[in-house]
Amino acid sequence: MMIRDRITETPFRVRYAETDQMGFAHHSNHLVWFEVARLEFFRDLGLSYDQLERESQTFLPVVEIRCRYMKPLFYDREFVIRTRLKRLGRRGMTFAYRIVDPAGSVNYARGESRHIATNRHGRPCTFPEYFLRACRLDDEL
Amino acid sequence: MMIRDRITETPFRVRYAETDQMGFAHHSNHLVWFEVARLEFFRDLGLSYDQLERESQTFLPVVEIRCRYMKPLFYDREFVIRTRLKRLGRRGMTFAYRIVDPAGSVNYARGESRHIATNRHGRPCTFPEYFLRACRLDDEL
Amino acid sequence: MMIRDRITETPFRVRYAETDQMGFAHHSNHLVWFEVARLEFFRDLGLSYDQLERESQTFLPVVEIRCRYMKPLFYDREFVIRTRLKRLGRRGMTFAYRIVDPAGSVNYARGESRHIATNRHGRPCTFPEYFLRACRLDDEL
Amino acid sequence: MMIRDRITETPFRVRYAETDQMGFAHHSNHLVWFEVARLEFFRDLGLSYDQLERESQTFLPVVEIRCRYMKPLFYDREFVIRTRLKRLGRRGMTFAYRIVDPAGSVNYARGESRHIATNRHGRPCTFPEYFLRACRLDDEL
Repeated sequence: MMIRDRITETPFRVRYAETDQMGFAHHSNHLVWFEVARLEFFRDLGLSYDQLERESQTFLPVVEIRCRYMKPLFYDREFVIRTRLKRLGRRGMTFAYRIVDPAGSVNYARGESRHIATNRHGRPCTFPEYFLRACRLDDEL
Repeated sequence: MMIRDRITETPFRVRYAETDQMGFAHHSNHLVWFEVARLEFFRDLGLSYDQLERESQTFLPVVEIRCRYMKPLFYDREFVIRTRLKRLGRRGMTFAYRIVDPAGSVNYARGESRHIATNRHGRPCTFPEYFLRACRLDDEL
Repeated sequence: MMIRDRITETPFRVRYAETDQMGFAHHSNHLVWFEVARLEFFRDLGLSYDQLERESQTFLPVVEIRCRYMKPLFYDREFVIRTRLKRLGRRGMTFAYRIVDPAGSVNYARGESRHIATNRHGRPCTFPEYFLRACRLDDEL
Repeated sequence: MMIRDRITETPFRVRYAETDQMGFAHHSNHLVWFEVARLEFFRDLGLSYDQLERESQTFLPVVEIRCRYMKPLFYDREFVIRTRLKRLGRRGMTFAYRIVDPAGSVNYARGESRHIATNRHGRPCTFPEYFLRACRLDDEL
């Protein structure tokens, strides 16, 4: 399925509570940030993940995640996540992320998350049509 | 309402991810630990908070919290939370907590949490009878 | 010590990972947000907490916290924290926080945090002069 | 480098704060649990990660992580992490994890984490000899 070649950029700043005693952000936070960035990606397409859950009773759990950590992110550091929809199917999708500095010249981390669509009870399902349409290329509509 | 004068002791160990760059556990974790200890207090009375939520559709959100931090809790440190039900009403309850070392001689922190009973939609309600009964003194039954 | 009557407003949006199965933000996150807001308060005064730690080797651990939760904060909800320095001493300070909606008409929560200044080894100390000066009223300078 | 074919089993129970509004543990917690399990693996070998950091000034940041999520972990669910050292080098190591139920018949998730040894300033270094020795097979000693 052809997908929009769109990159959403979401700005962040490392919170104090996100650091650990190694002196920089604990590696589990990257997954939290990826999620914020991914839901922002939907917002950029005019989609609301909240609405997807509430109105369409469709959920998007993570089934696989990867992250490669290149540089530590220290407290108060500003950074940007560049989010891209890498693959889209009727029943799932894969996102790719890059964490860079605001100027885009330093690579802090990159990752991927794979998701399936499920109903409220965790059963796999297909995305609602309006949702798929919004994620696809315009000329496919 | 007379309540059981019971103290539940729950053992913990500081997780690495719970530290921050100050080198000890971030102060927000105490609230997470209090919650684990509080739900363990229920388990000690033969109650399941999970069941309260699922079967009785009764929830126990926090409406007020206090914590006094006396000593830092470093990574890997073992500690114990002593939990006591301080006040019990038909529509709410207050817990008191003390965080001590396993020998009980060092005080790391103490706190309180106040809760109200609500239904699934957040409306205040009363606790189910079986729940109140289990929290009260035996001679009241 | 007279302090600037200044309120910093810091905007937030509830992250998905901050919710729990009750369906809204877990109450421990308020402490994390207060911290972000407090460090933003310093930035507003031209102070860097990071610099305070690194260059002045002065830390600002929380010794007491209180929070009163008035309304649930659901996923994706935008909110603002209004932070005010309530008390300032040579060796400690107290902040007051209000969590409101962006229009300022809904009160979600309010809280306080009390801090002492310590050195790297956790020993109480006094704030550096430049730091106290920046927090005080202009006419005191 | 031959390594001990040893599996450490670490028991856990899902904390309420670890759930999100999807109704089960948020996927970022798996990384926190892996870390607890990994540091327990060291303890099982008679090693203290804390000591490694403090006395040997050697740190073990994560450079890559993967996790495959098979089944949701609901609040209060007990589970076990089986941790295995998959690869050991003088300058880094890789761990493999499986999250299973206490009986070992349900697979909740599995993952891997790759680490490098660094000094306090984040520069790559080699592990201390005593550390490598403890991780190797006995007959290699």
